[in-house]
Amino acid sequence: MKLYEKIANQLRDDIYAGLFVVGDKMPSIRQLVAEHQVSISTVQQGYHQLELENLIEARPKSGYFVCYQATPPVLPETSRPAQRPIEVSQWQEVLEVLLTKEGVDTIQLQHAMPNMSEATLTPLLKKMSQLMRHQMALSLPYGDIKGALVLREQIAKLALNSGALLHPDDLVITSGCQEGLSVCLRAVTNPGDVVAVESPSFYGSMQAIKAANLKAIEIPTNASTGLSLEALELTLEQWPIKAILVTPTCNNPMGYSMPEADKKRLYQLAQSYDICIIEDDIYGDISYQLPRPKSIKSFDEDGRVLLCSSFSKTVAPGVRVGWIAPGRYRDKVTHVKYVSSSMCPTLPQLAIADFIQSGGYSKHTRRVRLLYKQGRDHLIKCIKREFPSDTRISFPQGGYILWVELNKDYDTVKLASQCKEGEVSIAPGTLFSATGKYRHCMRLNFSEQTEIEREQGIRQLAFYINQQNQFK
Amino acid sequence: MKLYEKIANQLRDDIYAGLFVVGDKMPSIRQLVAEHQVSISTVQQGYHQLELENLIEARPKSGYFVCYQATPPVLPETSRPAQRPIEVSQWQEVLEVLLTKEGVDTIQLQHAMPNMSEATLTPLLKKMSQLMRHQMALSLPYGDIKGALVLREQIAKLALNSGALLHPDDLVITSGCQEGLSVCLRAVTNPGDVVAVESPSFYGSMQAIKAANLKAIEIPTNASTGLSLEALELTLEQWPIKAILVTPTCNNPMGYSMPEADKKRLYQLAQSYDICIIEDDIYGDISYQLPRPKSIKSFDEDGRVLLCSSFSKTVAPGVRVGWIAPGRYRDKVTHVKYVSSSMCPTLPQLAIADFIQSGGYSKHTRRVRLLYKQGRDHLIKCIKREFPSDTRISFPQGGYILWVELNKDYDTVKLASQCKEGEVSIAPGTLFSATGKYRHCMRLNFSEQTEIEREQGIRQLAFYINQQNQFK
Repeated sequence: MKLYEKIANQLRDDIYAGLFVVGDKMPSIRQLVAEHQVSISTVQQGYHQLELENLIEARPKSGYFVCYQATPPVLPETSRPAQRPIEVSQWQEVLEVLLTKEGVDTIQLQHAMPNMSEATLTPLLKKMSQLMRHQMALSLPYGDIKGALVLREQIAKLALNSGALLHPDDLVITSGCQEGLSVCLRAVTNPGDVVAVESPSFYGSMQAIKAANLKAIEIPTNASTGLSLEALELTLEQWPIKAILVTPTCNNPMGYSMPEADKKRLYQLAQSYDICIIEDDIYGDISYQLPRPKSIKSFDEDGRVLLCSSFSKTVAPGVRVGWIAPGRYRDKVTHVKYVSSSMCPTLPQLAIADFIQSGGYSKHTRRVRLLYKQGRDHLIKCIKREFPSDTRISFPQGGYILWVELNKDYDTVKLASQCKEGEVSIAPGTLFSATGKYRHCMRLNFSEQTEIEREQGIRQLAFYINQQNQFK
Repeated sequence: MKLYEKIANQLRDDIYAGLFVVGDKMPSIRQLVAEHQVSISTVQQGYHQLELENLIEARPKSGYFVCYQATPPVLPETSRPAQRPIEVSQWQEVLEVLLTKEGVDTIQLQHAMPNMSEATLTPLLKKMSQLMRHQMALSLPYGDIKGALVLREQIAKLALNSGALLHPDDLVITSGCQEGLSVCLRAVTNPGDVVAVESPSFYGSMQAIKAANLKAIEIPTNASTGLSLEALELTLEQWPIKAILVTPTCNNPMGYSMPEADKKRLYQLAQSYDICIIEDDIYGDISYQLPRPKSIKSFDEDGRVLLCSSFSKTVAPGVRVGWIAPGRYRDKVTHVKYVSSSMCPTLPQLAIADFIQSGGYSKHTRRVRLLYKQGRDHLIKCIKREFPSDTRISFPQGGYILWVELNKDYDTVKLASQCKEGEVSIAPGTLFSATGKYRHCMRLNFSEQTEIEREQGIRQLAFYINQQNQFK
């Protein structure tokens, strides 16, 4: 990396992190020269770079000023799903996505795959390799049924950041968050029960509802505040709901984080109707806000919240390490976890525990959080530029996926199949509904691509969207 | 290893493998001296070792003759469970076993843990370490939803040994056999359905029946031929059975292998009642018989057999690699596997694929098979010597666990808690019944201990059993 890039990077991080906001004066050239022990022209070149990115502007004889402001796009409309219990369909559509073999050249906007190329991941990889060399024997026998204690201790410490006070004994390690959600659903419901979910909602959890012989009732969500509590309350009065399954922090697919007050009210609603909440917190630690938002679990007084999470989105999905904080359902959860897949492998758990304890996890999430926030702003800029002007876009508060709502005349299922001719992939909106709604919407990720790839991908999508327009 | 031990080991292997049977004359000393290029006294020392083990006897002026014959003990009686659908209980008892933290000095006869200290496992460990160094990147992303193709190809080849012709596309990789059984049960049943099982039966599969909201109907088994087909047929006439869950080869906990003709008849019964069979083949590859017995899957003409297996018992449970050959239920099985825990980690799959392809797996199973057979004979010898004379013992045809049936006056649940004071652990018989029967039985393993440890453990058990006798 060149010196000027280094300086530009740091200043950019500071702007994204909110240390300098719109209208603020940036440090003087003289200051930076002294601070970094570099030449004047290096600093100038750094600032020039940020000007090119439209983050700052030069005012004659005054210096550089921040002009960057993350302006929310026009948000998707509040969703209006049918509020009655329904059977989840769409498995064939989900399967097709899962079985997709993407070409090497495909610009992958489809899967919620984290950035795994940052150097901040190296300590984890080193530890895994080291464990494999020196503690190989631990990889052979069955592990602890509830998961390695050292990992549960570290996760309990992490949970403090979300306001939750957990004991290591209150945790059960799972094979990723998918197993956690699946286990919790089966632990707290009986076949035929009804579970309330946000609409749109992550397809993995909806397919878990289907597989557990449950029915879903889809609750409207607001693109910036999440689950509509009014709609939920009406539904709770009308239907025998057994549990609420929500992703309230950095939601998948919308990216919103429910305001803290709403989370608390949601918990109180669950209390007054005496039902439980399954909270999917998988993106919680890569919220752009610091300290990270509180979890619903942090309000849990009587153990009715089952929090599920994993390191799949914050670190890497291949490690397959997740966890459940099952509250009062611990015994039932342990049973279902045991029959589901017995114990989890030990070495990945030890490696992750070390990664957290040594500070590597915190450093890594700090790093990728900035990258994702930049990615969000860049992707929104691209979409605004290339897509039809009546397009609505969600404004994620964390993570690396967003939701695009096209005019109702467009068809993203068709778009996904048009994409197969080109070199870009998307997740059509229908996957996120129990019944194939949101056919004019799609989920895109902004984690892995370079800016050039992202621009190219969005241009290609815009081209196919325009093609649809011509044949209307 | 000393030279004479090497020679003794080879001759012992030949005897166990059946190359020399009882009454056969062993090779002459002169022959072995020439063959191995060793001294006469080395060969004599080798033969002396085998004499000490009671495998051979010296006849004056004639040479050495095999006197080893594996004589079956008095077998447990045919089981007589109540043949009506029942809810599975015993979870607290199973959990207690799972949570047991055994001391370093405990002689572990409780868990079905394979021998993992043989050098034939080294190539696998090396490969895992090597993959970790050079293909680390593969450990990060999500893997293939059905599992790594290279592994499925190797498993399809392995399946030929059991007479089954499978295509790699007919396989779904799972996180061990427990996930396979759990997934298959959920894929072929609806809540409330009845599943027929052998009695006694592995507690993990029975708890999976419980967790899937199913009922079990326990079918009597014969200690040498397994599931009573007559009893099964009567039950099929009387009750609406949805599936049969069996471990017909090297059964857990009994060790029997159903005769091939019975397996075929079982399949035909399933055909005529149009139900499906979930076949647990987890110990199949370490049957003492070579070539290994055919699986029920090998008779499957119409895809009604779902075979589940894994490398947990043949290689090591910690690798967490299992598979399902789901027949006509492939789509449903893929769905339930996906919601159950998403994809399996890639690296362990690649390591196992290499282990099979390079011949390491075959070499390893050949090696441990002999050790287990020796272990069986030794454990039976110890039990016969130390336990009450009316004790019945199963005679495993593979694997490393056997079933002990004491006089009905004894209580193995109490025995298990007596053991906690000492340094030996057992699995009480109640775990293997849906309703806590078999309180006078226990399962013991003979995989890991040295002969000295095994003798010591059995002596300690006999001591506690005698204690119970005194207080009767």
